[in-house]
Amino acid sequence: MPADVSLATVAAQAGVSVSTVSRIVNGETRRASPATVQRVRDAIEAVGYRPNPAGRALRRGETQLVAVLAANLDNPAMATIASSTEAALREAGYVMILCDTHDRPDLQDEYLAAMRVQRVSGLVMIAAVASPGLAEMAEAGVPMVFVTRRNPVGPGLFVGIDDRAAGAAVADHFVAAGCRAPAVVFPRRGSSASRDRVAGFIDRLAALGAAPDAIMRGEGDGLSHLQVGYDGAAGLFASARRPDAILCVSDQIAYGVARRAREAGIGIPDPCRLVSIDGTPLNQWVAPWLTSVRIPYPVYGAEIVAGLEAIRRGGAPAERLLPFAFG
Amino acid sequence: MPADVSLATVAAQAGVSVSTVSRIVNGETRRASPATVQRVRDAIEAVGYRPNPAGRALRRGETQLVAVLAANLDNPAMATIASSTEAALREAGYVMILCDTHDRPDLQDEYLAAMRVQRVSGLVMIAAVASPGLAEMAEAGVPMVFVTRRNPVGPGLFVGIDDRAAGAAVADHFVAAGCRAPAVVFPRRGSSASRDRVAGFIDRLAALGAAPDAIMRGEGDGLSHLQVGYDGAAGLFASARRPDAILCVSDQIAYGVARRAREAGIGIPDPCRLVSIDGTPLNQWVAPWLTSVRIPYPVYGAEIVAGLEAIRRGGAPAERLLPFAFG
Repeated sequence: MPADVSLATVAAQAGVSVSTVSRIVNGETRRASPATVQRVRDAIEAVGYRPNPAGRALRRGETQLVAVLAANLDNPAMATIASSTEAALREAGYVMILCDTHDRPDLQDEYLAAMRVQRVSGLVMIAAVASPGLAEMAEAGVPMVFVTRRNPVGPGLFVGIDDRAAGAAVADHFVAAGCRAPAVVFPRRGSSASRDRVAGFIDRLAALGAAPDAIMRGEGDGLSHLQVGYDGAAGLFASARRPDAILCVSDQIAYGVARRAREAGIGIPDPCRLVSIDGTPLNQWVAPWLTSVRIPYPVYGAEIVAGLEAIRRGGAPAERLLPFAFG
Repeated sequence: MPADVSLATVAAQAGVSVSTVSRIVNGETRRASPATVQRVRDAIEAVGYRPNPAGRALRRGETQLVAVLAANLDNPAMATIASSTEAALREAGYVMILCDTHDRPDLQDEYLAAMRVQRVSGLVMIAAVASPGLAEMAEAGVPMVFVTRRNPVGPGLFVGIDDRAAGAAVADHFVAAGCRAPAVVFPRRGSSASRDRVAGFIDRLAALGAAPDAIMRGEGDGLSHLQVGYDGAAGLFASARRPDAILCVSDQIAYGVARRAREAGIGIPDPCRLVSIDGTPLNQWVAPWLTSVRIPYPVYGAEIVAGLEAIRRGGAPAERLLPFAFG
C-alpha cells in the first residue's frame, strides 16, 4: 500500500540517495541535475510515493508540534492512547511531543510552561491533574483536549466514555448473573473517571434494590493501580462476608485484586468473579479469567485530533463519548 | 523534597500567579513591581524552589530537544525505557520528542529526516530497524544512541545487556535444574538482541554436551511478541517429544507461549518450565509462574543520557552493557 512506500523506495528506484530524494521532494532542486530531478519524479510516479505530511511540514520549517502530557506511560492503556494519538497526529501533519508528568502537578506545570514557549499547536492531556498552570493554560487559547479524565479545574473538550454508564452496565451484569455480595475496588485519590464508574455502579445497584451498605468497598492508595487493587482487595477477602463479584475500575486494579485472591486461595471467577473497565488487549493473554468492559483506545487518537481541529476552527468544545462494550 | 516544589508552590507562597513567578524566574522582571519581584525571590528562598532545567531552557528559547524513536510503544519494556529516558533527559535539561516507528523502515526514515530539520541535540533509537536514512543519519554527526538493538547498519553506541551471556545463563539454569528437553521460542525476523540470546543459549547447551538437533526451536512471525510466542510454541506442544523447559527471548513471548500451553492443557512450570528475558514488573502480577532474567530498564534512561553527552564531548562510542539478574 502507498503508505508503506518510503523515500528509500523512491531512492532505490531512481538510483540516488535518500537525501537527494528528500531535497527534491521538498523543492530543493538546485543541487541536483535536471536529469536527476526528472529521474526522481519518475520514480515517485512509478512507486506511488506520498510524503508524510508531518515530515514535509518539518522539512519546510513549518513545525506543527502537538504536546501530549500523559500521567503515566507505564500504564498500558495510556501507552495505547499515546500510540494511537501519535499515528493520528502524523496522518494530520503534526509531530507529537510526549511528556510524562508522573501524575505530579509540579511537573505538569513545568511542561505546560515549556510547551507554551514552544508554541505548540495543541495540547492533549491524558489523565490531567489539577494544577494552577493548567487553569492559566486554558485561558491562553491553546486548543486542549482532555482524555480519560475531565479537566479537573474547569470546562474543556473531553474524549472518553460515559463512565457512569459503564459502572451501571457492570451492576446490571452482576444482578443478571445472580450475584448476591457485590463489591467495588477503586483508588482513594480517584480521578473523575474512577469516581463516575463507582457512582454509576453503586447507584444502579441501589436502584435495583440493593441496600447501600450491602455493597462492599475496597480503596487503595498510591499511583500504581496494580498496588491499588492489591491493597484494596485485602480487606474484602479478610472480611466474614466474602464478595462473590467485584468491579475493578481498571484492568490493572483487576490484576492486583487477582494477585491478592491467589494469595488468599480464593478462586477467580469461581467463587468470586472479577469485571474490570478498560479491556486492554493484554487481558486475553495474561488474564483469561477476567471479564472486562472494552474501551476503544485504538480509536482515541482519531477522536483527539478531530477534537483539536474542531477547536482550532472555532468550534465549541463538546464531549466526544465513545462506545464501550463487554469484551 | 525540593524536586517536588513547583512554580505553583512559589506562587501560592508569594500570593501571585504562576506566570508571574515563571517570568521572574526567567529574568523578565520589567512587568512586575520591585516589591513583587522581591516577594517572589523571598518565596523561592522560603520554599526551596529549583527550576526544571528543561523548562527553563525552553522558556529562554534555547530549545534542547532529543528525539526518541521507539519501534513499538505498546511493548511494556519499550514504554519503561521511554519513561526512564524522559526523566533522565528532563534532569539533564532536555525535552524528549517521542516517535513511534511501528518497526517500519519508511516511518523511521521520515522521522529521522524530520528530526534532522528540527536540529535535535541527540537521537535515541530504541530497537532501530535497518533503513537507508539511518545509515545517512550516522554520517550527519548527530549524537545517536542505540538501545536494546545494536545499530543494524553500522557502528554506534549501544545501551543494553550482554544478550549472548543472558542466553547462556538460561542454558546453565536449565542444565542445573536437570531439564532434558530444552527449547527456545523466538521471532523469525529477529533483532540483534533476539539472535544473540538464542545463539548464547544454543552454544552453551552444545558446550555442555547437548546435540544441536536435540534443542527444539519454535519461530513465530509478526511484530507482536505475544503472537510470536503463541505461534512459535504451537509446533513444540504438538510434537511427540515435548519440551520440559523453554527459553522465551522476551516476556511477551512467554505470555504467548503460556496461552498456547493453557489451551494445550500443559502445566506451567510443571511439566514445562518457562524462562524469559526482560523481567518487566508486570510479571510478578500476572505471570507468577514465569522465571525471568531481569533487565534494569529503569536505569537505561541515565545510561542513555550519559552516552549522548559522552558523544557530544567527543568521546568514542563504546558499549554500555548493564548487568542482568535472575528475577
